[in-house]
Amino acid sequence: MLQILFLLSLFLSTSHASDFCVADLKGVKSPSGYPCKSHVTVDDFVFSGFKAGNTSNVFKAALTPAFVDEFPGVNGLGFSAARLDLDVGGIIPMHSHPSGSELLIMVSGHITAGFIASDNSVFLKTLSKGDLMIFPQGLLHFQLNSGNRKATAFFTYSSTNPGAQLLDLALFGNNLDSVLVQKSTLLDLAQVKKLKGVFGGSY
Amino acid sequence: MLQILFLLSLFLSTSHASDFCVADLKGVKSPSGYPCKSHVTVDDFVFSGFKAGNTSNVFKAALTPAFVDEFPGVNGLGFSAARLDLDVGGIIPMHSHPSGSELLIMVSGHITAGFIASDNSVFLKTLSKGDLMIFPQGLLHFQLNSGNRKATAFFTYSSTNPGAQLLDLALFGNNLDSVLVQKSTLLDLAQVKKLKGVFGGSY
Amino acid sequence: MLQILFLLSLFLSTSHASDFCVADLKGVKSPSGYPCKSHVTVDDFVFSGFKAGNTSNVFKAALTPAFVDEFPGVNGLGFSAARLDLDVGGIIPMHSHPSGSELLIMVSGHITAGFIASDNSVFLKTLSKGDLMIFPQGLLHFQLNSGNRKATAFFTYSSTNPGAQLLDLALFGNNLDSVLVQKSTLLDLAQVKKLKGVFGGSY
Amino acid sequence: MLQILFLLSLFLSTSHASDFCVADLKGVKSPSGYPCKSHVTVDDFVFSGFKAGNTSNVFKAALTPAFVDEFPGVNGLGFSAARLDLDVGGIIPMHSHPSGSELLIMVSGHITAGFIASDNSVFLKTLSKGDLMIFPQGLLHFQLNSGNRKATAFFTYSSTNPGAQLLDLALFGNNLDSVLVQKSTLLDLAQVKKLKGVFGGSY
Amino acid sequence: MLQILFLLSLFLSTSHASDFCVADLKGVKSPSGYPCKSHVTVDDFVFSGFKAGNTSNVFKAALTPAFVDEFPGVNGLGFSAARLDLDVGGIIPMHSHPSGSELLIMVSGHITAGFIASDNSVFLKTLSKGDLMIFPQGLLHFQLNSGNRKATAFFTYSSTNPGAQLLDLALFGNNLDSVLVQKSTLLDLAQVKKLKGVFGGSY
Amino acid sequence: MLQILFLLSLFLSTSHASDFCVADLKGVKSPSGYPCKSHVTVDDFVFSGFKAGNTSNVFKAALTPAFVDEFPGVNGLGFSAARLDLDVGGIIPMHSHPSGSELLIMVSGHITAGFIASDNSVFLKTLSKGDLMIFPQGLLHFQLNSGNRKATAFFTYSSTNPGAQLLDLALFGNNLDSVLVQKSTLLDLAQVKKLKGVFGGSY
Repeated sequence: MLQILFLLSLFLSTSHASDFCVADLKGVKSPSGYPCKSHVTVDDFVFSGFKAGNTSNVFKAALTPAFVDEFPGVNGLGFSAARLDLDVGGIIPMHSHPSGSELLIMVSGHITAGFIASDNSVFLKTLSKGDLMIFPQGLLHFQLNSGNRKATAFFTYSSTNPGAQLLDLALFGNNLDSVLVQKSTLLDLAQVKKLKGVFGGSY
Repeated sequence: MLQILFLLSLFLSTSHASDFCVADLKGVKSPSGYPCKSHVTVDDFVFSGFKAGNTSNVFKAALTPAFVDEFPGVNGLGFSAARLDLDVGGIIPMHSHPSGSELLIMVSGHITAGFIASDNSVFLKTLSKGDLMIFPQGLLHFQLNSGNRKATAFFTYSSTNPGAQLLDLALFGNNLDSVLVQKSTLLDLAQVKKLKGVFGGSY
Repeated sequence: MLQILFLLSLFLSTSHASDFCVADLKGVKSPSGYPCKSHVTVDDFVFSGFKAGNTSNVFKAALTPAFVDEFPGVNGLGFSAARLDLDVGGIIPMHSHPSGSELLIMVSGHITAGFIASDNSVFLKTLSKGDLMIFPQGLLHFQLNSGNRKATAFFTYSSTNPGAQLLDLALFGNNLDSVLVQKSTLLDLAQVKKLKGVFGGSY
Repeated sequence: MLQILFLLSLFLSTSHASDFCVADLKGVKSPSGYPCKSHVTVDDFVFSGFKAGNTSNVFKAALTPAFVDEFPGVNGLGFSAARLDLDVGGIIPMHSHPSGSELLIMVSGHITAGFIASDNSVFLKTLSKGDLMIFPQGLLHFQLNSGNRKATAFFTYSSTNPGAQLLDLALFGNNLDSVLVQKSTLLDLAQVKKLKGVFGGSY
Repeated sequence: MLQILFLLSLFLSTSHASDFCVADLKGVKSPSGYPCKSHVTVDDFVFSGFKAGNTSNVFKAALTPAFVDEFPGVNGLGFSAARLDLDVGGIIPMHSHPSGSELLIMVSGHITAGFIASDNSVFLKTLSKGDLMIFPQGLLHFQLNSGNRKATAFFTYSSTNPGAQLLDLALFGNNLDSVLVQKSTLLDLAQVKKLKGVFGGSY
Repeated sequence: MLQILFLLSLFLSTSHASDFCVADLKGVKSPSGYPCKSHVTVDDFVFSGFKAGNTSNVFKAALTPAFVDEFPGVNGLGFSAARLDLDVGGIIPMHSHPSGSELLIMVSGHITAGFIASDNSVFLKTLSKGDLMIFPQGLLHFQLNSGNRKATAFFTYSSTNPGAQLLDLALFGNNLDSVLVQKSTLLDLAQVKKLKGVFGGSY
C-alpha cells in the first residue's frame, strides 16, 4: 500500500492544476482570462441560473448569460452559454459577438433567425424544436419569435466571454455626436435623433 | 449608385471566405479540420436532428451527436453539440473526451453526474432543470438518470469533434490481450474475461 | 567541404517548408488557410500595389487591400494590410472586421476615427501624421477625413483575411425583408426603404 | 562606439521579455501558465534531476517529472519532460494525459507499450533502444517492461503540465461511491470493493 | 425607456472586458501578456510617436518601436509596429525576430532588403514607395538604404513583442568567450576580437 | 449485446479521426500541416531511427531528425525530436530554430551549450548525464562536446518542424553578395570571402 502510494505520488505531483483553471473573479484578468482560484469544489463547475427571464420589456425578451463573470468554471476552457426567452413577437435585435461564434439550440416555440456575412449575403431560417443554428463570430444577426407562443433557446459560444455589440445601443445609446452617426451610417439626422431619444444617447 | 458600388467592391473582394469554413466532408482532413465547401446556403448552418433518441438498449441511453461529421457548419469554429436522452436508471458510463471540454445543459429530469480530476478528487452533483455542469477535457466522467422519469440534456463541446473514449469499450471491446488488460488495470483476470464477453472483445 | 555538406544536409532536410506557407490560391482553403505553393520566389513576399486609390465615388474614399487573396505570402502568418485614401470629407462608414483587429498608421492628413466597445462606450480621436490607432476585433468603427486636404493611412490586421462587414450594406444592400430590418433595428420603415434604394437592396 | 549603442538601445528596449517567461512558482497561475520571474539565470533553463528513480514499489516503476512545477523554465513554451525507470516486469498502468500528447524515447531495455483510440482500436508495439513512440492526448495507454533487464525511457509532452489520470486511482482511490463505480463501469461490486481496498478508496 | 434598459443591462453585464485588454505595465507578465488595465480611455489605443528618429549614428539608422511596452493597447491583440528611418547608406544590420513575423511598408526612398530561409535560399528585393515585403518569423534579414536620399518604412509584426536578435551584438556584444565564438562560427579569432572591440564585448 | 452496440455506435460515429492526424506526406501542406492519412497502423506512431549518426565530418557531429517529414505521426501534435552525436571536440555550430523551442536531454558525455537572448545576455552551461536544457524559439545557440569522450543527447521541439537556420550557411553558403554580407554583418570582406570559400557560397 505504501509502495503503491510511493509511485502514485509522482503522478499526483502534477495535481489537478493542469485540468482546469476556475476564475478567481477578484483577481486581475490577463489576455488568457482570470487567474485560477486555489480551492475549488463541484459548485465551481455548476451553474444553476438557467431559469426563464423576465420578458416584461419593450423587446419582450430576456437573455440570461452564463459567461465567465457569472460562471467562473468556464475560465480558460473556451466556451460559455446563455438562455434566451422570447414572448410572442419578442426579438433580440441586430447585434454581433466580437469575441466568439454562437450556437443556438431550440428548446420550444418558433424563432426566425438570420445573420449577414461579410459579402452581404443573408442566411435566414425559421427554427423549431430540435433545430440548431450557427452564427459565426463578429457577424450581425438577430432572433425573432415568429410563432404564436413563447419561445426558448439555449446559446453556447466559442469563448468564455463572447461580448455583445447591440447595434441600436452602439449607434444611439451613447455620446457619439449625431452628425458623426449620420455621416458614418447615412441615416437621416432626424432618424438618428429620434432613436437617440429612445436609447438614451446624448445629441 | 455606381459610385457607391465602386467603393464597396473593395470591401467585398474579401467575400465571406474569412467568416466561416463549412466542411466539405468529401475532402481530406488536415489538423485544422476539413477543407471549406465552396458554395453554402443557410442549411449548412442549421442542424435539425436534435430529436429524442432510441433508449431501448442495455444502458437505457441515447446520444445524438452534432459533431462536424453530422453538422459540417461547425468546421473551424471550435464547438459542436450533442443531445442526451436517459430512461429511468439509464447511464452514460465512464468515458472521457480526448479533444474537448464538455458543457451539459439540463432540459428535463434529474441526472447525477461526476468527473474525476488528475489529482484523483471527485466532483459529483445531482442536476435538474436549469442547471449547467462542466466536464474538463480528457477527464473521466459519467451521467446517470437518478430521477424517476426520463431525463434529457444538451451537451456542447470546445471542439468540432471532441472524440469519446468509453472505458468499457477501450478495455474490453477490442483485441487487447486479456493478460495485458489485467496487468495494466489490476483487475482480476476473470473480471476481464467476463467483460470481454459482454463487450465483444477477443480473449 | 564534402564533410561539411554531410553534416549540413541533415539540417537542410527540413527545408524552408516550416518557415512559411505561401498560398496556392488555386487550392482549396481549410480553417488554417490556403495550401502551400510548392515553388516560391522573392516576389511571393512582395506586394507592389500600395498606390493611391480612386476616390471618385460618393464616399470620396478608396481602400486597397493586401489580404491573402491579393498577397498570398501572408498565408499562415496571421497578418495582412490595406491602404486607405480619403478625399476632403471622405469617409469609410461604420463597419467591423469579424476576423481580426486593425491597426491604423497615419501617413498624411487628418482623420477622425472612432470605435464603440461592447459596453457601448465610444473611443474617438482625431489623428494626424505620426499617430497609430487600434480598432479591436469585431467592433463597429469608422474613419472620416476631418482635415482640409487628402488623407492617407495604412492598416494592418491580426489576420490574413480580416473580413469587413459594412453596416449599410449588411442592412440595406441585400434581400433581407424590410420589415425584418425595421423590427431588428427599430429604424422607421421609410428610412429602411430609402436606404435600400440607395444601397440596392430589394424591398 | 556610443553611436552604435545609440541605435542598439532601440533594439534592446524590447529586452528578453518576449523570448521566454520562466515561471514564478509563487505567483498565481492563469490559463496561460504562471507569471514570469523577473530575474533569470542559466539555471532557470537547466534541470538536473533526470536520475534513476526508486523502483522499490509494487509497480516496480519510477517516474521523474520535469513539468513546470519542477522545471519552471518550460512555462509558456508548450513542452515538458519526464524520465521513466521500469524494473523487470515493471509497469506504468493504464492512464491518460488530459492536457498533452506524449512522445516516448527509448534509452535502454524493452518496453511493450500500447494506446487505445476513440474508435476502440489498439496500437501496440514492443520498443527497444532507438525507438520513439507517440501517445496522442487524452487516450488511455500503458508501458510494460517486457524484457529481462531494467528499462529506461524519456518522455516529452506537448504541454508544460500534461496532467495524468491513472485509471485505478480515478476509480478506486477516492470517495466515489462503490455502487456508482459499479454502475458506471459495469465491474462487479466485489471487484470494485477489492480494488478500493488496494488503492485506499472509501467504500 | 426603463424597459429597454432592463433588457440591455443583460447585454451590458459582459462589459467591454472581452473586447480588449490594455496592458497594465506595472503588472507582472504571464505567457499571454500583461494583466489588463482596469480603466481605459481612447489614448490607450493611440500611439503618437511615429516621428523621424535620430540617424546620427554609425549605422545611419533609427528604429522607433511601438511594441507593447511603448504602446500598451496592443496587449493581447497579436500585433505591434515600428518606424524605420535610414539615411543614405544606412542599414539595419543582419538580425531576426524570435517571436513574430515582420511586414514592411515602404513610405519613401529605396531599400534593398533580404531574408534567408532555413534551406539557405536568399530572398532579396529592392523596394520603393508602394511596396510591401514579408520577413517570416525567426529568419535572418536586413534592410539597406540603397537609394540616394533618406528612406522611411513602417513595420508591423504578428506579435505584441517580436523581440530582435541583432547578429553582431549577439556574437560580439557580450561576455561570450572569444574562443567559443570562434568555434561556433568558424570566424577567425582575430575577426572575433576586432568586432568584440567594436561592439563592446569582453574578450 | 446488440443493444450495447446500438448505444456504442453513437460514440463510435466520431471514430479516431479527432484523436490524431498522421501526415500523408504525398498530400499538400497547409499552415496547420499535412493532410491526414486515411488508414493508420501502430507503425505510424513509431520511429526506429534514433541510432548513432556518422560523425566523420569536419564538425565531428551528426544530427538525426525525427521531424514530421521523417516521422509522420507527429503531424498536428505540436512536437518532434532529434538525436545528436558529437565526437570529442565536435560541435553543432551557432544556429536557431525559427519555428520552435528546443529541449535537450543529455544521454552521455559532456556538452557545453549556450544561447543568447534578445537583450544580448548569454546563458551558458556545461551539461552531463541527467541534465536537461531549454533553448527558446528563434534564439542563436550552439552545443559543443567539451568532454573527453563521445557525447549523445536527444532533442525535442515544440513544433512538428522547427526548422534550423545555421549561421555559417545563411551567411556564406549561398549567393548573397559578399558586399551585402559585409555591410549587414560588419565582418571584413576578406573574412566573408574566406568563409564563402569554405561553405560553398558564390562571391
